[in-house]
Amino acid sequence: MITQQIWVLICGALVFFMQAGFTCYEAGFVQSKNVISVSIENLLTFMITVAMFISIGYYLMFGESIISMPSSHYSYLFLHIMFAAVAVTIFAGAMSERSKITALLTASIFAAGLIYPVYGRFVWGDALGGNFAWLHQLGFMDYAGASVVHTTAGFITLAGLIIVGSRTSTRTGKSNIPLATLGVFILWFGWLGFNGGNQQVDLDQMGLVFLNTTLSASFGMMGALVANLLRRRKGRYLISIFNGVLGGLVAVTAVSGWCHPLSAVIIGFIAGVCADLSTLILERYGIDDVVNAIPAHLVGGICGVLLLPWFIDKQYLLCDSRMEQFGAQCLGLMVNFGWAFGLSLLMFWAINKTIGIRVSGEDEKKGLNIVEFNDIYSWENYMEVSSYESQI
Amino acid sequence: MITQQIWVLICGALVFFMQAGFTCYEAGFVQSKNVISVSIENLLTFMITVAMFISIGYYLMFGESIISMPSSHYSYLFLHIMFAAVAVTIFAGAMSERSKITALLTASIFAAGLIYPVYGRFVWGDALGGNFAWLHQLGFMDYAGASVVHTTAGFITLAGLIIVGSRTSTRTGKSNIPLATLGVFILWFGWLGFNGGNQQVDLDQMGLVFLNTTLSASFGMMGALVANLLRRRKGRYLISIFNGVLGGLVAVTAVSGWCHPLSAVIIGFIAGVCADLSTLILERYGIDDVVNAIPAHLVGGICGVLLLPWFIDKQYLLCDSRMEQFGAQCLGLMVNFGWAFGLSLLMFWAINKTIGIRVSGEDEKKGLNIVEFNDIYSWENYMEVSSYESQI
Amino acid sequence: MITQQIWVLICGALVFFMQAGFTCYEAGFVQSKNVISVSIENLLTFMITVAMFISIGYYLMFGESIISMPSSHYSYLFLHIMFAAVAVTIFAGAMSERSKITALLTASIFAAGLIYPVYGRFVWGDALGGNFAWLHQLGFMDYAGASVVHTTAGFITLAGLIIVGSRTSTRTGKSNIPLATLGVFILWFGWLGFNGGNQQVDLDQMGLVFLNTTLSASFGMMGALVANLLRRRKGRYLISIFNGVLGGLVAVTAVSGWCHPLSAVIIGFIAGVCADLSTLILERYGIDDVVNAIPAHLVGGICGVLLLPWFIDKQYLLCDSRMEQFGAQCLGLMVNFGWAFGLSLLMFWAINKTIGIRVSGEDEKKGLNIVEFNDIYSWENYMEVSSYESQI
Repeated sequence: MITQQIWVLICGALVFFMQAGFTCYEAGFVQSKNVISVSIENLLTFMITVAMFISIGYYLMFGESIISMPSSHYSYLFLHIMFAAVAVTIFAGAMSERSKITALLTASIFAAGLIYPVYGRFVWGDALGGNFAWLHQLGFMDYAGASVVHTTAGFITLAGLIIVGSRTSTRTGKSNIPLATLGVFILWFGWLGFNGGNQQVDLDQMGLVFLNTTLSASFGMMGALVANLLRRRKGRYLISIFNGVLGGLVAVTAVSGWCHPLSAVIIGFIAGVCADLSTLILERYGIDDVVNAIPAHLVGGICGVLLLPWFIDKQYLLCDSRMEQFGAQCLGLMVNFGWAFGLSLLMFWAINKTIGIRVSGEDEKKGLNIVEFNDIYSWENYMEVSSYESQI
Repeated sequence: MITQQIWVLICGALVFFMQAGFTCYEAGFVQSKNVISVSIENLLTFMITVAMFISIGYYLMFGESIISMPSSHYSYLFLHIMFAAVAVTIFAGAMSERSKITALLTASIFAAGLIYPVYGRFVWGDALGGNFAWLHQLGFMDYAGASVVHTTAGFITLAGLIIVGSRTSTRTGKSNIPLATLGVFILWFGWLGFNGGNQQVDLDQMGLVFLNTTLSASFGMMGALVANLLRRRKGRYLISIFNGVLGGLVAVTAVSGWCHPLSAVIIGFIAGVCADLSTLILERYGIDDVVNAIPAHLVGGICGVLLLPWFIDKQYLLCDSRMEQFGAQCLGLMVNFGWAFGLSLLMFWAINKTIGIRVSGEDEKKGLNIVEFNDIYSWENYMEVSSYESQI
Repeated sequence: MITQQIWVLICGALVFFMQAGFTCYEAGFVQSKNVISVSIENLLTFMITVAMFISIGYYLMFGESIISMPSSHYSYLFLHIMFAAVAVTIFAGAMSERSKITALLTASIFAAGLIYPVYGRFVWGDALGGNFAWLHQLGFMDYAGASVVHTTAGFITLAGLIIVGSRTSTRTGKSNIPLATLGVFILWFGWLGFNGGNQQVDLDQMGLVFLNTTLSASFGMMGALVANLLRRRKGRYLISIFNGVLGGLVAVTAVSGWCHPLSAVIIGFIAGVCADLSTLILERYGIDDVVNAIPAHLVGGICGVLLLPWFIDKQYLLCDSRMEQFGAQCLGLMVNFGWAFGLSLLMFWAINKTIGIRVSGEDEKKGLNIVEFNDIYSWENYMEVSSYESQI
């Protein structure tokens, strides 16, 4: 049916546009001395994802090759390139400001060609008729990638952050909150396609999908704000807002076409609360996540996957009861943890041993605009700040 | 029909994206010391609109509740959340730089839950079969919200501006015109969905709707430029351009699927002229509209509503003659003024008496980035400027 | 068929959005003292294109007038306004920072009303049943405007750059790479509509079109990077990335629905290499292209048009053999060169003789924000830099 194909393409285009959202969001959060680096790296990561996913990843995930596939499957490939690109782009932003661009790009090769597609195969691998989706066969459910895309990305990020360590200092240069806000709106806009494209329900249920996406994001923001207010951290609610929106978007991705709008409201709210509170855990363990990828993608995703059994419409349940479904969801997450976190830890460890992940302390202070791109204006600014500091 | 539903969703997504446009536009116009505040407030206002509109507003407007509505209506609800969000977001930008964020958020609760939906009920309330739309029954016409959304927003804004008063000074910090230009293009892009989504004509007339939207915006720009040139205000034509585009977009919203493209050209041109000239009136009465919301949304909207009878294709006329239609249009606007302006004046007066609208003079000078969000870089900048001024 | 019309409108909206992409891209590349000028000029050029194209250009190109055309053709007109706007907006960005805005706007009148539509008529003029498309009848092929839009724009740009000459200095003020990156992503997003909208294949082939667009852009980036690395220009690869993406996008435009995805990979890669290497030629001849329009649009477009015969699926060939097709492609490009470059050279020469193209050296140093828009903050910055320089 032609309308279906066109819908997939429009949704895929929206998911592609999320790359612009990530770029704005990340460039808005990093210090000005690193904005060029983080922007360009978003372009490069996308290039690598496309190359790896069409040559290896898509075949691993769905058992079909670009050389021999029928042309009617091209829209599906297009959409799934964009899904892969979302999964791959996230860790690099979180690890920015002190990671070598070569290390991040090397990691993205493995993320796009191995880590993401293999876990995707476990869950969605039967979409084109294959029978590789053993997690799905065991009852694990994920509507549009809360686990396949987002917790996978979150676990890769967590492994990377552990290996690379915190930034030396975060008090130089300034961020750009309007740009980050634009990024959030672009991500939200693109997320409509993210949840809409991966059709596991009929096309006439897309109104529900779009509505749930919007509701969960809005109430995610509210949940994070409430959690923040209860913690009385004046002036910090800015970050809570961003975490709440993204946490809500990620969480509802698990179930967006399978639950009533009021369920989406509750899922979003809970995910927002959890995303906000999770920043406390990150602070406690000294995990320095520049763009709050862990609260949004990992915590939001876990919330979505584990809340699914309790909010999904009964007709969609794969297991016999909500409790059994909860068991299947836990299993899926554990496999995700084992595969994505375990393999990423190994990968980042190996990268660190070979080409090295971390830039030198001096380079970190100068900023990666200078180190990677010889940016003259960052140089001028650096010289000015240095001479100023030497006078103190 | 599935194509129809999908069209509504795509248009709704575009209207959602207008939120990004408003954010860029407003953050581009306010001084740098307030950009964080105005960006975040756009997110918060959207959250409030969603919460209020799904719980109360939609029911007031169309007589249907999210709890019991059929799932086939979800796309319609999705679209109308986005319309409400446009109506609600506008006044806060215009009142920025000297208004308390709590006051603005309180006002948006009433705007989304009462002021907007009740007037919407008068005009569009019969869309789902109800018979609350007495203005429509008296012959008042509004294709996609020139009055329901835009003059309503304009009247709320006018009331707010009168109560809050002008900024103390506008000569500190700088604006960002490229960001504002990006905002205008995003708004224009989203406006295609705004006019396209509210289908009062068949889907095969959407080419006309998109074309008219584009023509009116372009010729609105031209009208405002001509008006500006005749007034010989060198160097001020930048603001005229923005007002012209937005004025043209708002005006054609009244009639976008009901008139010939050449009519859209003329409507846009007239609205552009009026939007530009209206800034003189605002200056004369000392109304300090930071983002030119009054020229664009109120003046543009009034132009559209009052020009409709003379340019609409005869087959679409609700009244017996163009003159009678003009009478109905005047009536609709008067009711809009009475309800939206009257109630808003009362609302802002009450807010001012209770929590207060205006920040202190010192806070206004510091900028709301510091006051609301403890932004350290705005602090540093403020200290620098202050010490510089004390040396003079 | 209703789905077809709606598809054209959605694609047209995406092509419209490319205007936002050009604005961000150009404002990101020019020095900060010129960002207002370049942003506003994008709005004004669009206005002029709309006015000229609906009154003259569309009639010249397709033989139909807005006054008498059937309403079912409005979507097609909408789409082609957007194509024209892409063709017209490009030269002004490349010539920015030293050209008078009045000169650029005058040139855009001729570009939108004469240069673009007449060449378009030669290639696509039979789309609505006319028989003006003599190049098409001789076998020349262009899927979605690699020549009609992009090499035309490239030749106009080249003529303009030759007449206006290089900037005096490029070492004042700074650019904004995150904004330029956002611009690239917006352009890429819009390009899906650019290739999708100009349907020369059935709607069910749109998956191929979207996929090819993405692949060519990604591998264009890769080609440009490889070319850059081989030239060992450390720190300059930033520009290569941008040129590669845009060169790849332009090149695939020639053939996006007519070739296998693996062909799009190769076309993109070659175009990326050529786009990157072409900057050497520009440097050698001292052609100062502020936004790299020549590498992207002219070189990318030539690559696409000349690679088409070797990669197109045989069933789509218009000529009897690939070699003959190559001949037709060369002919088409030569006509394009003769018409677009020849006429533009004449036009810019005439504009230079009458109103003058170039701003004064002092104005160029001050920057056009001040000269055109009396921007006070650019003034303050200029005074500061001037007093600083006088102390040295």
